[in-house]
Amino acid sequence: MNEKKLVGEKAAEFVKDGMIVGLGTGSTVYYTLEKIGQMVKEGLQIKGIPTSMATEKLAHEFGIPLTSFKEVTYLDVAIDGADEVDPDLNLIKGGGGALLREKIIAAAANTFIVVADSSKLSAKLGSFRLPVEVIPFGYERTAMQISSIGCVPEMRLSNGNPYITDNHNYIFDCEIPENSQPHKLETVLNMIPGVVENGLFTKMADVIITLDANKKTVLMKEKNKNRIR
Amino acid sequence: MNEKKLVGEKAAEFVKDGMIVGLGTGSTVYYTLEKIGQMVKEGLQIKGIPTSMATEKLAHEFGIPLTSFKEVTYLDVAIDGADEVDPDLNLIKGGGGALLREKIIAAAANTFIVVADSSKLSAKLGSFRLPVEVIPFGYERTAMQISSIGCVPEMRLSNGNPYITDNHNYIFDCEIPENSQPHKLETVLNMIPGVVENGLFTKMADVIITLDANKKTVLMKEKNKNRIR
Repeated sequence: MNEKKLVGEKAAEFVKDGMIVGLGTGSTVYYTLEKIGQMVKEGLQIKGIPTSMATEKLAHEFGIPLTSFKEVTYLDVAIDGADEVDPDLNLIKGGGGALLREKIIAAAANTFIVVADSSKLSAKLGSFRLPVEVIPFGYERTAMQISSIGCVPEMRLSNGNPYITDNHNYIFDCEIPENSQPHKLETVLNMIPGVVENGLFTKMADVIITLDANKKTVLMKEKNKNRIR
Repeated sequence: MNEKKLVGEKAAEFVKDGMIVGLGTGSTVYYTLEKIGQMVKEGLQIKGIPTSMATEKLAHEFGIPLTSFKEVTYLDVAIDGADEVDPDLNLIKGGGGALLREKIIAAAANTFIVVADSSKLSAKLGSFRLPVEVIPFGYERTAMQISSIGCVPEMRLSNGNPYITDNHNYIFDCEIPENSQPHKLETVLNMIPGVVENGLFTKMADVIITLDANKKTVLMKEKNKNRIR
């Protein structure tokens, strides 16, 4: 069994009858969605809120009923992948471009579960470039502001043109300074006018599901939280 | 001479030959623009960056040459109005809906000058509701998050539908808690996923141009800054 499948299916164990579930996006969560779909076929009653159009389609395919923030005000659990995870459960996300919707859903969840194969684990964040979503107006100036705090921004392109997010914004993929403090950097970036959101998810993840060196599933609970029910 | 005209024209004295100038929006800055237009006709060489489409039109009308962040990386001075000003030169802006562009331009200016007739002065911010710009996705949840920190958000409408900003977002006009600390509130709001920016401009204004009780123009410099050149 491949790593992503092992990790992804394990996360589905957190989904219980009656829950509202945030449905993440990506190649690992794919297996979570597939598994939840099976569970629904076997009688599980849940409703999902998807973090992307791609996941919305998969949910339809797998038969997972959906809802939205028009009908619910919080989620019991959200399950999503990450591009990089540090030992304090800080994350870099947004490689897929949906960081804002993913962050809204993670923040709305009582329990936020991250699935990550072992290649995503890192002693220190920064191997993966940090996506920063910015308003098109004055983006040149916003890039300068991002540079002024020690990051190296590069505009994400799509066929030679600026990549456009679901929210009509641009993304800068940023090298971050070597000794960054993740929560501080997350805050400082969000205070730059023109920055809509960034891919640092600090103090958010409750559980990381990943593999140890023996490829056996491991649960790592965050030390400073006890929100699991 | 009316208050707005007195105050607005006074601000134009800060505009000198060769400057890049942020051009604000509103009924007081109108007189600044008109005055700058006159000065340009008399030989002043400047270029402006407008904070709104309305101001762009006025600049054309008054003959003020324009530039953009494609050509310049900072502004020498920006001049804009405010909806409310406290004694520490903290501002509430965004009644006109252009708070994001206004904030980008104010942040890019070496000197940020605020023109405000005496009706805008307030011992404590909060008479004017604070505009908060949010992403449409999950706005119901974002409103809850805003409420959870003690604000009372009301969606801004336009002909019965949500008001849409230049950046394709919504605006919540928010009553703020009575004992708000402006800079802290500005930061906390910006850290809510889904909040793009808010109308608190703290630690930004260098000079407020307003009137004293005798309707004589008064300059109030910010205590902790000395960036005026």
